[in-house]
Amino acid sequence: MYSISEFKNVFDPLLEEFIGEKLEGFNSLTTDAFIKDFVGHTKKLVLGGKRLRPYLAFAMYKAYGGEEDEAAMKLFVSLEVFHMFALVHDDIMDKASTRRAELTEHKFILEKLKGFGDFPHIANSQAILVGDLLMSWSLDNFRDNEDFDNVNFEKAREYFYKMIDEVILGQMLDVDTATKENPGQELIDEKTRLKTSRYTCVRPMQIGAALADKNYGDEEFLENLGTKVGVAFQMQDDLLAIVGSTESLAKDILIDVEEHQHTFFTNYIFENGTSKQLTEFKKYFGRKLSDAEKERVKELFEHSGAIDAGKDVISKMLTQARQLVDKSNFEDVYKEKMKELVELMEKRQA
Amino acid sequence: MYSISEFKNVFDPLLEEFIGEKLEGFNSLTTDAFIKDFVGHTKKLVLGGKRLRPYLAFAMYKAYGGEEDEAAMKLFVSLEVFHMFALVHDDIMDKASTRRAELTEHKFILEKLKGFGDFPHIANSQAILVGDLLMSWSLDNFRDNEDFDNVNFEKAREYFYKMIDEVILGQMLDVDTATKENPGQELIDEKTRLKTSRYTCVRPMQIGAALADKNYGDEEFLENLGTKVGVAFQMQDDLLAIVGSTESLAKDILIDVEEHQHTFFTNYIFENGTSKQLTEFKKYFGRKLSDAEKERVKELFEHSGAIDAGKDVISKMLTQARQLVDKSNFEDVYKEKMKELVELMEKRQA
Repeated sequence: MYSISEFKNVFDPLLEEFIGEKLEGFNSLTTDAFIKDFVGHTKKLVLGGKRLRPYLAFAMYKAYGGEEDEAAMKLFVSLEVFHMFALVHDDIMDKASTRRAELTEHKFILEKLKGFGDFPHIANSQAILVGDLLMSWSLDNFRDNEDFDNVNFEKAREYFYKMIDEVILGQMLDVDTATKENPGQELIDEKTRLKTSRYTCVRPMQIGAALADKNYGDEEFLENLGTKVGVAFQMQDDLLAIVGSTESLAKDILIDVEEHQHTFFTNYIFENGTSKQLTEFKKYFGRKLSDAEKERVKELFEHSGAIDAGKDVISKMLTQARQLVDKSNFEDVYKEKMKELVELMEKRQA
Repeated sequence: MYSISEFKNVFDPLLEEFIGEKLEGFNSLTTDAFIKDFVGHTKKLVLGGKRLRPYLAFAMYKAYGGEEDEAAMKLFVSLEVFHMFALVHDDIMDKASTRRAELTEHKFILEKLKGFGDFPHIANSQAILVGDLLMSWSLDNFRDNEDFDNVNFEKAREYFYKMIDEVILGQMLDVDTATKENPGQELIDEKTRLKTSRYTCVRPMQIGAALADKNYGDEEFLENLGTKVGVAFQMQDDLLAIVGSTESLAKDILIDVEEHQHTFFTNYIFENGTSKQLTEFKKYFGRKLSDAEKERVKELFEHSGAIDAGKDVISKMLTQARQLVDKSNFEDVYKEKMKELVELMEKRQA
């Protein structure tokens, strides 16, 4: 069984080949160099990324006895291409500038635009379309083939489309929380459950398990395990967006705060910060920040205790994930790889 | 064989049932009344529409010998739901306010929004997500079932996904032409070919034909016929957006001109108008117009000869379409229905 970095080495050529073929087909439809250029930016965007979703699907595919490694990986290419679609659209909504050490799609297009019109709107429009293209490529690829049992495949397919409804709803809640002064921990938990636990962990794991074994019935077990891992992953992400550096993260620092996005950490200040800390935080929440102001916001997260509280939750979640893995029926080799993954998450710096 | 209005009567209940089921599934995922409300707006958006795409697919399915009427219609629900997706995203890009006598999705959300933040951006973000949801529902529905031969289905499926690449490219060209002062007739023809001929006519017809008959090989014939019908349809659309009234059209009048969208008619002024007409037209092209200015723009289209020239092209295309139908191998009943459709297009007022 592969570790996640070994997996990336085997998986990425399949992913790049897929994107390459789709781009070739698309490019054959037009002579417009400008459009080819900005659709071609997806080739760069695909290079980054940890491949967590296809890895989790593949790990469960193997743990539940799947044997068609290459066919399964090719199917799981859909998860990564779908994720690219989601990032392209999310980045428009979040007004993000960088992604995986590259310009986000809409920023890339904006920089290329010359001519008549409302450039930011036009760049966003084109980036919406690039996202649409990626979604259709992802769904096109998720199709039956002779390597899988039909019943298994249909079950996996059902999980895949459930995942799509859930992650879109999660993003709607995410956008919606940005319109609320203080949405509360319940709504934040709800969006984390959908956008991260289900999308990043639970559904990919269930897709892999169902594809391998039509009698797979551990829905609840994978829901539990995936939720622990997913919550920890999201909170790590949010934490790194506060304490990380732009270099190591390859995306914008404190953009959540600038964009009035609520996370565990912002909510902690609302619910547990002193009224002085909250008053000061509100001055910064939801607007562009200077570097000095960013430093001050970091301090507010520290001094309110949000950082320590968040680290505690992450550590608790990962401990529970380890216990679930230990108690599972997985063979030792899969237990080991899952625990390696948990450890990687614990040490994650970017 | 059904006429298009008889078809709509049989098809619409299937379409509404599909949207109803998908909404029910989606609503079961959340208690957020605001999100349910704006996703539910799709129920109203689905009511309008002529069902041209599924009708053309169905007409060819029958003409090429298909016999599974209900299963085929259920599959063609994907074409109409995909079209809803495309309209929701297009309306954001075109900044359109009304669609099928209802508010466009992003305008509907904007009117509901109360709270903190950049409302138009948030409304657009949510509408992007509603569109994403519709696309995934459409593609989810386009799947094999026991009613069709596997080879036929795979061929139809291939046309469906080709259509998606093409229409997204067509919309990219459309957005791109708005950035150009005068893109020229060639680029306008290219976007009409992709966005309308292929998307609205050729590909739906090929999907229906291939689904019915694995030996279907009239790709070129349907390409020709679909192109004539498609070009006429698009030009009628553009013409009605100039000479129609908002009531009968149920969408915004002269919005193409306000949004700096090039059509046959705008290009005619650029290439064949007097320099005085062109200078005056440029004053109006690409900005919000008063009612008096809209009247003046209509006059410019009249006086430059654009309207008459456009009507000539439409009439020529429909005559050629009739000739192609007459020369085809279709049985008389299908020839008759296709010619009825051409006649309907000729008389179209909205």
